[in-house]
Amino acid sequence: MMFFVEPIGFVRSEITRLEDAARQGDEGGTEAWVELTPQAVPGLAGIVVGDELFVLTWLHLAQREVLQVHPRGDRDRPLTGVFATRSQDRPNPVGLHRVSVLEVAGHKLRVAPLEAIDGTPIVDIKPVLTGSDPSER
Amino acid sequence: MMFFVEPIGFVRSEITRLEDAARQGDEGGTEAWVELTPQAVPGLAGIVVGDELFVLTWLHLAQREVLQVHPRGDRDRPLTGVFATRSQDRPNPVGLHRVSVLEVAGHKLRVAPLEAIDGTPIVDIKPVLTGSDPSER
Repeated sequence: MMFFVEPIGFVRSEITRLEDAARQGDEGGTEAWVELTPQAVPGLAGIVVGDELFVLTWLHLAQREVLQVHPRGDRDRPLTGVFATRSQDRPNPVGLHRVSVLEVAGHKLRVAPLEAIDGTPIVDIKPVLTGSDPSER
Repeated sequence: MMFFVEPIGFVRSEITRLEDAARQGDEGGTEAWVELTPQAVPGLAGIVVGDELFVLTWLHLAQREVLQVHPRGDRDRPLTGVFATRSQDRPNPVGLHRVSVLEVAGHKLRVAPLEAIDGTPIVDIKPVLTGSDPSER
């Protein structure tokens, strides 16, 4: 059984090397643009500055056959299953980034923090649900 | 450009009909099993009872060509881009479920709340990061 993912857009970032992308977004405050393909743009309707979103990426440089890692590359820490870590190496390398929307410019959103290298494909965007608003989308 | 997702496992749940699965997990407290394929099992090492995880699913019954919806199916609410909603209909129908681990049983995790129908493919599992622990995986 297999499913195919077709990117809805791409990350535009000053980060161009994997080693410059922190493991978790909260370690840096890097701004980036989430740039949608023309076909996907209608899906942005309703997103406004200040929204909290999950951006799901496809970590296209990841190694998909890796199932255990030393967390954060620290060999002093025991081998751990990738599903218990945020390692980018995993069978289906989907990245999950919680961001704030800083600007909405047509087919692009400026967001932070987003630690992903320039050109990273985007799989999906979802609102963060806090559960405090009963009319939540 | 396209990428392929191969499920790492499947949801085992008493929910068998789409209409019984609430839109967001926090509306119900349904328990379910996350059952991994034999190949993916080593990736669970380190997950323990009480962990907070994100389970990413592939919502295989979703309509992928839908880009705008009336939120929660309420026609009194204006058409909204799917990326501003948690609609399961979206170009890449990845479901994002925040769950607690209730039991670890070999290749299976019992979790709650998980509102997904029995047989839903699982794409990935990740720890929820709170940011409060500097040694966080």
